[in-house]
Amino acid sequence: MTHSEVRSVTEAVAERRERVNRAIEEELPIARPERLYEASRYLLDAGGKRLRPAVLLLTAEALCDVAPLSTDYREFPTLDGDTVDVLRAAVSIETIQSFTLIHDDIMDDDDLRRGVPSVHREYDLETAILAGDTLYSKAFEIMLESGAHPGRSLKALRTLASTCTRICEGQSLDVEFERREDVSESEYLEMIELKTAVLYGSATSVPADLLGADDRTVEALYRYGIDIGKAFQIQDDVLDLTVPSDVLGKQRGSDLVEGKRTLITLHAREQGVDVDSLIGTDDPEAVTEREIDDAVSRLEAVGSIEYARERAQSLVREGKDELAVLPENEARSQLEAIADYLIERGY
Amino acid sequence: MTHSEVRSVTEAVAERRERVNRAIEEELPIARPERLYEASRYLLDAGGKRLRPAVLLLTAEALCDVAPLSTDYREFPTLDGDTVDVLRAAVSIETIQSFTLIHDDIMDDDDLRRGVPSVHREYDLETAILAGDTLYSKAFEIMLESGAHPGRSLKALRTLASTCTRICEGQSLDVEFERREDVSESEYLEMIELKTAVLYGSATSVPADLLGADDRTVEALYRYGIDIGKAFQIQDDVLDLTVPSDVLGKQRGSDLVEGKRTLITLHAREQGVDVDSLIGTDDPEAVTEREIDDAVSRLEAVGSIEYARERAQSLVREGKDELAVLPENEARSQLEAIADYLIERGY
Repeated sequence: MTHSEVRSVTEAVAERRERVNRAIEEELPIARPERLYEASRYLLDAGGKRLRPAVLLLTAEALCDVAPLSTDYREFPTLDGDTVDVLRAAVSIETIQSFTLIHDDIMDDDDLRRGVPSVHREYDLETAILAGDTLYSKAFEIMLESGAHPGRSLKALRTLASTCTRICEGQSLDVEFERREDVSESEYLEMIELKTAVLYGSATSVPADLLGADDRTVEALYRYGIDIGKAFQIQDDVLDLTVPSDVLGKQRGSDLVEGKRTLITLHAREQGVDVDSLIGTDDPEAVTEREIDDAVSRLEAVGSIEYARERAQSLVREGKDELAVLPENEARSQLEAIADYLIERGY
Repeated sequence: MTHSEVRSVTEAVAERRERVNRAIEEELPIARPERLYEASRYLLDAGGKRLRPAVLLLTAEALCDVAPLSTDYREFPTLDGDTVDVLRAAVSIETIQSFTLIHDDIMDDDDLRRGVPSVHREYDLETAILAGDTLYSKAFEIMLESGAHPGRSLKALRTLASTCTRICEGQSLDVEFERREDVSESEYLEMIELKTAVLYGSATSVPADLLGADDRTVEALYRYGIDIGKAFQIQDDVLDLTVPSDVLGKQRGSDLVEGKRTLITLHAREQGVDVDSLIGTDDPEAVTEREIDDAVSRLEAVGSIEYARERAQSLVREGKDELAVLPENEARSQLEAIADYLIERGY
């Protein structure tokens, strides 16, 4: 990607981010009990690029062949003359994302997220569990009020509910894999599909469900979401090793310290690297920058980081091919560019 | 209630419990990852009276005026000639109940539930959080497949989602009240409505939604559920003090030890009792039976336990009056008897 292509993508995301942020305030107001709702909003308010909502809104624009940002997302024209509130769908997906981050940080006992304390550190364990649980049901409440035909709403809700179940399954596999030495690449790819990619699959198939697309279109868009979601996770694993802690908003190399399986470590193990001994501690507080630098050099020397980058690139190519199901228009081009951006982004 | 009336109620519940238990195995099979699904099923398999599913199924029978247990719950006749699977709705409600127990036990750090270790003790914290999260989305997945008209399904799902949000709000208030001295009776009643009663309200209004009842009937049935749900919680607070630990399946008096606000302690405080000093420890492991006996005697002496019993009785009377909206039949009589049973049960 050229600099101007990257700028075009980040602008497209930023323009939608503002609308999503306003809608988050409208759909998730600080109600009583205030402490619960403040904790629920804490991570949402701390930042986040809103990639998934941006992908959802662009998918709606591409599918219905309207010029980007030309149409009120609250009364978005369906393929057959109705309107639905696609902004609610976008907020619902981001709400699920935020719920999973809150509970994941408890499970991993991570102190930092987006450069601020994790919710269970800023508040306490019980408030963090409840804040996640509140966002969980709120996501369904928000999705229920899109105004779509009941049958289409039900399809979107089915996608949302099965997505949540699969995220839990993926998270559970992630934990299980930390204890296992013999994780294969296909098991890893299944795990990240469940843990990460299905939410991108929701972001692209839910608007198609709500707007009345046919099954073939819904399925192609779902596969695009899955492919770019997997690529996104692989890139996340790369960035965890290569981006300074202050840019990441958390300790660099934490996956290595915590013994998480990634495509990088699976490849390195196949090359004979003793991955479990790359870092001498399992305490993220105790690790030194020098230790991480040495580990990264070793992983680069055997080609593992390059291998992960190439797999992500090929997933992005496959995902972009699925977009052939959409009319050719500016929003579709931006979806293609977002796919590229997900693996070229620096954080 | 006479002995034979109590026996009749417990039999009505037990007969439906068997069907609900079979349906739980069908709707929540042990899938991959096994450890996650085993943990999700752990409390459901450890027992439970299945009161809420029994109330849901009896509400369906009373509303559609069919003889109890005469009709396949999987193909239950609606009020206008269709069929819906009310057993899925029953399992969905019990699944939500089980999810809240798993997360509540983490938040209260309780060791025992239904006489077995709590999920975070039997497994670990991360598995328990994920098991609760999995049941959460499964409850929606199961409710989505009742086969009801899409518009009716959406109503039931709205009830389910808002119920979950309100349970979180109630749980949050419960925690907040532990830190406050000035909780009023109306605040307490609002808290238990949110924490406990709305799930009974779901159990009675969801079948009415799915079966095509009019709004007036849905609302009356919801109020019946709310009233008996509040009575149930007040009776639970009484039982926590008066039933031996081995029958309760957890330490007797744990509410007092943990400083939970109950109608009993609110009343006692108004009578001038220094409630916070009744038990000298806040560690449920360290409390003695003698200390709890003395505390209970003190609460009895000022009439607080009797006061709570009377409030529960009056809620049950009000709830039963709401059932006038139903046709007179055997299932309706059993719903009346269940209301009485909820405050006469010994555990």
